[in-house]
Amino acid sequence: MEAEKSVENTNGKPVEKTMEKIVALAKNRGFVYPGSEIYGGLANAWDYGPLGVELKNNVKRAWWQKFVQESEYNVGVDCAILMNPQVWVASGHVGGFTDPLIDCRACKTRHRADSLIEQWSKARLSESAAADGGLPSEPVKADGWSESELSAFIREHRVPCPDCGASDFTEVRKFNMMYKTFQGVTEDSSTEIYLRPETAQGIFVNFRNVQRTTRRKIPFGIAQIGKAFRNEITPGNFTFRTREFEQMELEFFCEPDTDLEWFAYWKDFCRSWLLSLGLTAENLRLRDHDQKELSFYSRATTDFEYRFPFGWGELWGLADRTDYDLKRHAEHSKDDLSYFDPGKNEKYVPFCVEPSLGADRAALAFLCDAYDEEAVGENDVRTVLRFHPALAPVKIGVLPLSKKLSDAAMAVYRALAPNYACEFDETGSIGKRYRRQDEIGTPFCVTYDFESENDRSVTIRERDSMDQVRLPIEGLAGWFSEKFKF
Amino acid sequence: MEAEKSVENTNGKPVEKTMEKIVALAKNRGFVYPGSEIYGGLANAWDYGPLGVELKNNVKRAWWQKFVQESEYNVGVDCAILMNPQVWVASGHVGGFTDPLIDCRACKTRHRADSLIEQWSKARLSESAAADGGLPSEPVKADGWSESELSAFIREHRVPCPDCGASDFTEVRKFNMMYKTFQGVTEDSSTEIYLRPETAQGIFVNFRNVQRTTRRKIPFGIAQIGKAFRNEITPGNFTFRTREFEQMELEFFCEPDTDLEWFAYWKDFCRSWLLSLGLTAENLRLRDHDQKELSFYSRATTDFEYRFPFGWGELWGLADRTDYDLKRHAEHSKDDLSYFDPGKNEKYVPFCVEPSLGADRAALAFLCDAYDEEAVGENDVRTVLRFHPALAPVKIGVLPLSKKLSDAAMAVYRALAPNYACEFDETGSIGKRYRRQDEIGTPFCVTYDFESENDRSVTIRERDSMDQVRLPIEGLAGWFSEKFKF
Repeated sequence: MEAEKSVENTNGKPVEKTMEKIVALAKNRGFVYPGSEIYGGLANAWDYGPLGVELKNNVKRAWWQKFVQESEYNVGVDCAILMNPQVWVASGHVGGFTDPLIDCRACKTRHRADSLIEQWSKARLSESAAADGGLPSEPVKADGWSESELSAFIREHRVPCPDCGASDFTEVRKFNMMYKTFQGVTEDSSTEIYLRPETAQGIFVNFRNVQRTTRRKIPFGIAQIGKAFRNEITPGNFTFRTREFEQMELEFFCEPDTDLEWFAYWKDFCRSWLLSLGLTAENLRLRDHDQKELSFYSRATTDFEYRFPFGWGELWGLADRTDYDLKRHAEHSKDDLSYFDPGKNEKYVPFCVEPSLGADRAALAFLCDAYDEEAVGENDVRTVLRFHPALAPVKIGVLPLSKKLSDAAMAVYRALAPNYACEFDETGSIGKRYRRQDEIGTPFCVTYDFESENDRSVTIRERDSMDQVRLPIEGLAGWFSEKFKF
Repeated sequence: MEAEKSVENTNGKPVEKTMEKIVALAKNRGFVYPGSEIYGGLANAWDYGPLGVELKNNVKRAWWQKFVQESEYNVGVDCAILMNPQVWVASGHVGGFTDPLIDCRACKTRHRADSLIEQWSKARLSESAAADGGLPSEPVKADGWSESELSAFIREHRVPCPDCGASDFTEVRKFNMMYKTFQGVTEDSSTEIYLRPETAQGIFVNFRNVQRTTRRKIPFGIAQIGKAFRNEITPGNFTFRTREFEQMELEFFCEPDTDLEWFAYWKDFCRSWLLSLGLTAENLRLRDHDQKELSFYSRATTDFEYRFPFGWGELWGLADRTDYDLKRHAEHSKDDLSYFDPGKNEKYVPFCVEPSLGADRAALAFLCDAYDEEAVGENDVRTVLRFHPALAPVKIGVLPLSKKLSDAAMAVYRALAPNYACEFDETGSIGKRYRRQDEIGTPFCVTYDFESENDRSVTIRERDSMDQVRLPIEGLAGWFSEKFKF
């Protein structure tokens, strides 16, 4: 957790962009609700409301548009969430997809050992900083430590239990984060299977099917959007870390030793995609893993991090996975997953570059990035979500100036609705309605007034500039046709 | 299972439309692959390949387009698959969402009691029919019988075990079809939760949230597309009945006693949606439930059935659920889920009409319906998927007549790809490529030939008529712009 940033808005005044404000707006306007709310919720589960589902769908569509539809390289798939459990043995998830847990012997609470160390270290540093007046140095990073390293550190530094203060822990044990379930007739007789913890493996096990049926030549990629599940010990930060989440993954297969070139290609491609959808460049940073941080099979990994109001958080993981996954599956399934390259007249197991993006995180980043408060006149402030028009849940608000004009305005709504997500709003003053549309990020409002009856024209008001322009109704379709591209 | 229908194709010759042919095409061209295939699969699980994901996405988009985007009544949501388990207590799924199972004491196999009776009855009827030469009367329908009714019938008629022939069964017991999993740190300490068996309940528990945040007045509807899971004993018929499947559900809330009018409205709306996407009317039938078949809370229910090659199967279930669901949740959650009607100045619990469609079944119905074989000339037959253009996975095939023209044809592909799903194919004779595009249902092929270099024009070939037309390249976008609407 980093101190909240104060950013300047378009008027040069500081906007306090806090999660509290964004979450409140999301709940009140129907972007996101707590899951199963009337029953007290379920851990950190969230449901997307009418605006949220459109925002998230727009993010997914924009990804599919650039990564599949317009791509000369990539095709899509949609694999089942429930897979043969051998997949997770081969991928290493059965053996290694674990969190390190310990129990406090005194108060019987359970903790994640690495978080325990990191939080203790942070607290200790800020205490000593407060005492010394000096700046804290970096806190300990225990991510990726072995169980014995974690146990040893906790013992050596007598790290206390945050609940009772004692320092009497069990040894660190591994806890597998995959959700388990049972398929078949009874629990005892049936197969223990898992909810997939990532979408990537569905792609790897279908590599040969896709290559064969599309007759694609290397290099080519396979893309997938879908749900994944991880039984996280500490979900949190709104929709940033949830146990159920949606991924947008691409596995891009290339000739061995061309992987680093393609890694650079996709790094640039992914960054451009984010920026073309309006993400603020200064809120994005690309962090390359150094040799020590890299997985043993990876030749390069870069985390795309976004500056959320709660601090920098990983948005997109880009990894050069070499031939690791296909080789693992070839070994475990006894199938030949190599590729015959007709150009080179040789057979090889392709290397793979994987950009993996969370759909919920991406939607959250675009939501946070869009949030703005703007002084309007002397004593007034408007809240506005400055979404890129391609991402805005409502594209056009259609507003009759008076309820007397509802029928005629509804005809305008009906003409636009087949091509654009529209909202019809006839309640409250026109100024109030503009503010409501600003607050949900609608890029354009079309107002039908008494003059419209005579001149067959309407007023279009643009969200960010608040500029207005008068246009004939029959010219609307043409005027809007290029406004929502990216 | 009904005898396979032989249908006439456009040439008046009979086409044998069999599941074998359709499944083979689906696997070979990349519509659908067996799930986890390299590990021997997982029961009846399937993965959508590059063409299948586009087909299914087009079906989902077409549904969202008419049921949400263009609808003045409805808004969408996207709720979590994992919900508070109290939801399923209130909905009745914990108590009543069961299959009746029995064990054979002799050979220890387990069976679904109602299926056992129905299959025995069918077999017995056809045996007696074969012996008598008479026509079989209707087989027994055991769906919905109580456990004691099932047990009594099996005893009385000495129904034999299909595996060993003995008739020595245990009593019938209920088996809950919800997938169970555990959330939290360890299995013993954590919450037992379920994978949702339907998307509808996410809508009911959010009724108040959606109404409040959208300020909608009754009547209005809430729509959702998402995965659901049922631990079926007997999945089968390709993607028709799978344990993991995707639903497209609408819960439409209206004033009490207007429900039957709205039931008629949505019945017509749903039927029109299917027909507007090209489904053959004679392959669709609407079966109204009679009083005896209705659930106790329902005032009307209609099954939309499609004539698949394996027989009639349920596609869409339309049910008037009255105020049953909201009242159950109000009771269990102790929350007030009533609505204040400002027009009538009174409070009531809305009634609800639910059209519930399987996305996988709908995609399968459109696939089966599209399948055709057509005699071309004397000795040739082409396979063609006659998809409605809005549903076709590939909209436009771009084909250079010769590889020498690839670069110029690729420029045409790049100009079209942002707006339409295109496929670039440069391998094989042009006739062979047309056939390949026919077989995957591509409505239009654009061929770039040597003359194109001079006249800046291309040939467009239409799938069904095979008619060709010459068009300037710069007129392509305009020509295609209205071709994919429905």
